Amino acid sequence: MISERIEALRQQMKQRGISIYIVPTSDFHESEYVGDYFKARRYITGFTGSAGTAVITMEDAGLWTDGRYFIQAENQLKDTPVTLFKMAEEGVPTVKEYVRKHLEEGGCLGFDGRVINSKAGEEYEAIAKEKKARLYVSEDLVDIIWTERPALPAEPAFLLGKEYTGESTRDKLKRLREKMAAEKATVHILTSLYDIAWLLNVRGGDIDHVPVILSFMMMTEDGCCWYVNQDVLSEELRIYLKINGIQTKGYNHIYQDVEALEAGEVALVDKAVVNFRILNNLKPEIKVIDKENPTVLMKAVKNEVELANTRKAHIKDGVAFTKFMYWLKKNIGKEQITEISASDYLKERRKEQEHFLDLSFDTISAYGPNAAMMHYSATEESNATLQPEGFLLVDSGGHYLEGTTDITRTLALGKLTNEEKRHFTAVCRANLNLADAKFLHGCRGINLDILARGPLWDLGIDYKCGTGHGVGHILNVHEGPNGIRWRIVPERNDSCVLEEGMVTTDEPGVYLEGKYGIRTENELICRKGEKNEYGQFMYFENITFAPIDLDAILPEEMSGAERKRLNDYHKAVYDTLAPYMTEQEELWLKEYTRAV
Amino acid sequence: MISERIEALRQQMKQRGISIYIVPTSDFHESEYVGDYFKARRYITGFTGSAGTAVITMEDAGLWTDGRYFIQAENQLKDTPVTLFKMAEEGVPTVKEYVRKHLEEGGCLGFDGRVINSKAGEEYEAIAKEKKARLYVSEDLVDIIWTERPALPAEPAFLLGKEYTGESTRDKLKRLREKMAAEKATVHILTSLYDIAWLLNVRGGDIDHVPVILSFMMMTEDGCCWYVNQDVLSEELRIYLKINGIQTKGYNHIYQDVEALEAGEVALVDKAVVNFRILNNLKPEIKVIDKENPTVLMKAVKNEVELANTRKAHIKDGVAFTKFMYWLKKNIGKEQITEISASDYLKERRKEQEHFLDLSFDTISAYGPNAAMMHYSATEESNATLQPEGFLLVDSGGHYLEGTTDITRTLALGKLTNEEKRHFTAVCRANLNLADAKFLHGCRGINLDILARGPLWDLGIDYKCGTGHGVGHILNVHEGPNGIRWRIVPERNDSCVLEEGMVTTDEPGVYLEGKYGIRTENELICRKGEKNEYGQFMYFENITFAPIDLDAILPEEMSGAERKRLNDYHKAVYDTLAPYMTEQEELWLKEYTRAV
Repeated sequence: MISERIEALRQQMKQRGISIYIVPTSDFHESEYVGDYFKARRYITGFTGSAGTAVITMEDAGLWTDGRYFIQAENQLKDTPVTLFKMAEEGVPTVKEYVRKHLEEGGCLGFDGRVINSKAGEEYEAIAKEKKARLYVSEDLVDIIWTERPALPAEPAFLLGKEYTGESTRDKLKRLREKMAAEKATVHILTSLYDIAWLLNVRGGDIDHVPVILSFMMMTEDGCCWYVNQDVLSEELRIYLKINGIQTKGYNHIYQDVEALEAGEVALVDKAVVNFRILNNLKPEIKVIDKENPTVLMKAVKNEVELANTRKAHIKDGVAFTKFMYWLKKNIGKEQITEISASDYLKERRKEQEHFLDLSFDTISAYGPNAAMMHYSATEESNATLQPEGFLLVDSGGHYLEGTTDITRTLALGKLTNEEKRHFTAVCRANLNLADAKFLHGCRGINLDILARGPLWDLGIDYKCGTGHGVGHILNVHEGPNGIRWRIVPERNDSCVLEEGMVTTDEPGVYLEGKYGIRTENELICRKGEKNEYGQFMYFENITFAPIDLDAILPEEMSGAERKRLNDYHKAVYDTLAPYMTEQEELWLKEYTRAV
Repeated sequence: MISERIEALRQQMKQRGISIYIVPTSDFHESEYVGDYFKARRYITGFTGSAGTAVITMEDAGLWTDGRYFIQAENQLKDTPVTLFKMAEEGVPTVKEYVRKHLEEGGCLGFDGRVINSKAGEEYEAIAKEKKARLYVSEDLVDIIWTERPALPAEPAFLLGKEYTGESTRDKLKRLREKMAAEKATVHILTSLYDIAWLLNVRGGDIDHVPVILSFMMMTEDGCCWYVNQDVLSEELRIYLKINGIQTKGYNHIYQDVEALEAGEVALVDKAVVNFRILNNLKPEIKVIDKENPTVLMKAVKNEVELANTRKAHIKDGVAFTKFMYWLKKNIGKEQITEISASDYLKERRKEQEHFLDLSFDTISAYGPNAAMMHYSATEESNATLQPEGFLLVDSGGHYLEGTTDITRTLALGKLTNEEKRHFTAVCRANLNLADAKFLHGCRGINLDILARGPLWDLGIDYKCGTGHGVGHILNVHEGPNGIRWRIVPERNDSCVLEEGMVTTDEPGVYLEGKYGIRTENELICRKGEKNEYGQFMYFENITFAPIDLDAILPEEMSGAERKRLNDYHKAVYDTLAPYMTEQEELWLKEYTRAV
């Protein structure tokens, strides 16, 4: 089947004289998650992992993917003509190195310019230029051969009232135009779905767990056009757009309008996000300012209304999680519970909460050794039955009308080893240590990371990921430009100065392959503290409320200050959640938030 | 007098058609400290501070200096025609902005190209180009009018044996040539006095407290020439140089030799260090690779012989300091002791130590409010008499044949307020907290700074400087590229990855204007710890031994872990120093290193 698809693609390539065709994993907007419509790389290779790039030549077909997926890809590519290229392994070329090597002089390099961002597109363009080769980016060849392709999503869009957003679209547009003016830009092309949804105070459902609307935007000094499937707009929304001076056009109309922009315009475009076909459609005489979209920082700094709502969302979420925890701790060993049935039970508790919209991502419910895989997702095959011993790691969250949550707790299901308890206690200390930071304005995640990572490093342990990420407000649960990690990774764009109103997760962990995984994750609002002759001090407000399982804590491994932090946190958990608990739950909560 | 000097300079400027003449504070080598010969800016303005730049035009004369010196400069410039420009104050132009504004079209900008580095020189060159102006950099006009100028220093040079350096000049040259080859450089011009002294295993005395030799070096793939005043070379040294294939020429001969380099050469030159006249003398056809001198990193990573010696130097220094501390604590209130007499007493104790060469910098002996000034240096006028109360801050160090030290202790002279004790205790916690860090290889100072600064930030206090700097080995006590600070300042070049063998200070503090200053400073060697699946772990070895004054410690403000750190440190201090103490000193030391 894969062979036939690749052959069909080669037919199309041959007709157009294309020698190499690239099929990445991306939508037209550089979204983190993509819907089924966009799974062209899966279609052409059969590999179902979330990350990977296929490169097809007349003779060969290759798939590049990273370490998380080597085993899966090897299995899925067996019996196909696709060769696996293990990214970052010694001696394995990158996609670009491969293309540079195999593109013949005067050849033609093809890809759908809509699924490759401008920065990457320009890099391919440079390779083509070196080889005096053509670039063919105006067609999606997979679309031609993919007869049963799913339709583009078209979920209804809805307005988020000012009582939830705290700032009108009019005011947001005004602020954005000020940023454009500061850059001397006459036009701004915005294609990030998160940024558009934030700017227009609208949400939709076009990506699983990410309530955004497939669309583009183009702003000028006095106009604003939203390119969107008109079918998803309600009458209320149409009126709202009109009032705010926002014109609408079809989703694909952006390409024509970009082409029509006159020489002399100055376009503010984030090349790391805007797709290459759009950039390519701009007249060469148009000056392009390649900068991060101003909306990235604007939406990361949550206003007081968003923060007040977010706090409410976190209380609901804490109630749901704590009821789940109570149920699990009471019933483990008494009835059959699996990873999946546990996450289903938790989902039901979230659904009971008012204004629940959706999960904010697929729940990670991972028992025992499964939890050592940081991004484990239980399948029917892997679904472990929980035993009354060891740890269950549950990383989950919800979207509510009031905001988005992301919480991880690791729960002791019964007997633990002393090592498990020591590691759990270190993770707890790490989490609360960072949450308790007081620091001068100007600090970035890189300054603070060791507060969380230090207690693990002291044990000779590291977790191979950041300590925390920014959280979107009823948007993507992962959001820049804030984050906490010990090395700046420029392409991740998560190491900005921490500003008041930013929401960041705090999630240190221990992952022992084949044994267990531990993670404790709360969300923190960055707040202004005292301002004095030394500068503006900042601190974090912990907004996640759920017990950190005392059954796994060794108080003797904590300093007095650390125990006080845990006890203070648990008191706040009890005070916040008790009113929402049944009598039995409340008694249990009291026990599980006791001072140690 | 200043008026006459400025007029005389203007005469020289007029004769050459120069419209603006710049006189910075620098030697020909970008050394941190400069000798009297190089104090041309002081000569022309009368301002004696260590930092500042004078700019003379036909109508005006200006002096730029920073916040440390505003008051002093105002006083010293009174009754002179020199206007003070307060650097970094709002509305005050920088030197470059001023030059750009006042240099007329087709004018001429002059400075001695030897006292301005190539990077700055090129910036002035660009300004001149903008204004279609000439650059005049081949003469030192101040030298012409400064009739009583001190002579260039010419202190005898001496060889540092392999028992102290651990690596022969031959091997160092070989390693350096490998770095040149990696850069494809055919010639390397090295003008940093520290780097030359390290490379040749020689020391001298041409800068106060910095045992270097005024000289330049030029290396090719097979040759090496040292440009140095021949009078300072002993017969032994001449033979050593010959054996190592090092030619010598006069100090100033470098300029001719650089001019004579042929087109086609590729020169490795650190433009931030090599002076502009040298760069300017290179033929335009010569390709310049502008990179940090490879010797910077090479000399910062101390070898095992250097480290073993350094440890010995620190024991001697700890003995000297502890004897001083004993004397001071016993005699305060009984005899008259001043800031200066205290530092004199300490200097005598250092001099008693075998192989003592010099202080490594002017001792800071600062009582009470004087210590709130971070760079206070007692003068006959300011010299405070110590009272049996409050704090004396002593920041001092020595050069020994074995190595260089830098230690700060703040000593309680009698009654302290509770605030003083709280702050002293926080500084102690900060110091030991950082020293106890365990971290993955790859960390820089920016990752670790909060371990020291955090305990102060928790109190709403900051110190407006880095937490630590690299330490030279019988060279400049301040040395890059290692250091510890919370914000990377590129021009400081002190934020490299911390490598095994680097020596860095750890010196958090509290500075309350008009009240007191507290600083506790130890030196730390960066060492490799365990290597496992998470990477290479690193830790610090504390090599400074002297009591941290327990009279100022509030044990109840420390966690159990913190008290253990202090007690462990004090046990090491006692065990290390006791053998060198008199019976009375030993009894006292026991008391002052007791567990709390």
